[in-house]
Amino acid sequence: MSIVLYELCGADAARPFSPFAWRIRMALKHKGLDFECRPKPFSEIPAIAPEAGKTVPILVDGDRTICDSWAIATYLEDTYPDRPSLFGGEGGRAAAKLIEGWVNASVSSLIAQLIIKDIWDVLGPDDQVYFRETREARFGRSLEEVQSGREDRLAEMGTALLPLHLMLKSQPFIGGEAPLHTDYLLFGTLQWARITSPFQFIDPSLPVGQWRERCLDLFDGFGRSVPAA
Amino acid sequence: MSIVLYELCGADAARPFSPFAWRIRMALKHKGLDFECRPKPFSEIPAIAPEAGKTVPILVDGDRTICDSWAIATYLEDTYPDRPSLFGGEGGRAAAKLIEGWVNASVSSLIAQLIIKDIWDVLGPDDQVYFRETREARFGRSLEEVQSGREDRLAEMGTALLPLHLMLKSQPFIGGEAPLHTDYLLFGTLQWARITSPFQFIDPSLPVGQWRERCLDLFDGFGRSVPAA
Repeated sequence: MSIVLYELCGADAARPFSPFAWRIRMALKHKGLDFECRPKPFSEIPAIAPEAGKTVPILVDGDRTICDSWAIATYLEDTYPDRPSLFGGEGGRAAAKLIEGWVNASVSSLIAQLIIKDIWDVLGPDDQVYFRETREARFGRSLEEVQSGREDRLAEMGTALLPLHLMLKSQPFIGGEAPLHTDYLLFGTLQWARITSPFQFIDPSLPVGQWRERCLDLFDGFGRSVPAA
Repeated sequence: MSIVLYELCGADAARPFSPFAWRIRMALKHKGLDFECRPKPFSEIPAIAPEAGKTVPILVDGDRTICDSWAIATYLEDTYPDRPSLFGGEGGRAAAKLIEGWVNASVSSLIAQLIIKDIWDVLGPDDQVYFRETREARFGRSLEEVQSGREDRLAEMGTALLPLHLMLKSQPFIGGEAPLHTDYLLFGTLQWARITSPFQFIDPSLPVGQWRERCLDLFDGFGRSVPAA
């Protein structure tokens, strides 16, 4: 039986956009594993596998059900050791945990404020109610207010991505000469924005943009299989 | 012949404080290599090994002279492969390059603005003239103005270190269960502040502070061999 990946979609099931699920989509491709994607709206996610967790991605591999993108990545690494490594050794696995923290704390949080209203736009009606209520409570402002003035925050975004800009002076991927899960951690987050929002905050001609293009090219252009918004 | 590490000091040669040299001090200890430190003021550094470079650290190992902390770390890893690994594999080495970028771009730049006048205070008279001229030109403000109001920037510093805070929920070191060079990249930068400035911007009772204490404990408390300012 093929691996099943439950992930998140809006009104259009052909446009899955969860940053965490994209990390696992890329990790599964990296491992060369067949998988079937099952995109679900927010409202249906808690019922998928309540004993495992209430957020996507959820991976079902035979009789194993795993929730949480980090837990799934390490499960894949340990369960399929003969496939290409996601981490390139134990030092890489440990470092990836800091890089995950960097993406989540220092990059995703800024991106969210650039695209939050655009995300709402792509959701189905039920999810729109849920998303607006929970996110506006979190930010203490309307989605429109959070996203407003995003053009003025482009420099802040560039500063947040400066670590990658510096790294790219000496190697083409966070994994070194070839990509590893560390690349997918950030790439998944950029896919979230690319698929939900037309707002361009990465110049494709600059090193960070070129890195994203290289990631989009991987696995026969798998990342491009969902066109940009 | 023992390895020689040229590094930076102020008026007191017993208080070396270069963040980049501290990364290598820790790396040499990690490798279990004997070394002799030769602290120099800014004014004497360009003449140490002009053919290799004009910044510390500069490492002399037999007939090899290497400048640049990243080049030295990779030299040590490749030259002494039978000693404990600094990177824990190729994935770890590649990821360390991004983490170096994170420390340099997202952490060191903020710390500099908390302690720049305190650094000036510990320099010898000739270095004080050089340091004030070059740094004030870089910032476009006086050292006093850059450092002023630092208490108001503590929250910004906490935000910058949030990736480490998140990571520490699941492992005690960036290297995983034990430290690797990725830990020394950040720890070296924190030593720079600890040795030059009395300003406390890390709470030793919080997870990030506890991580720093663990790093200070390594190699029989080597990091504590220079007392805090």
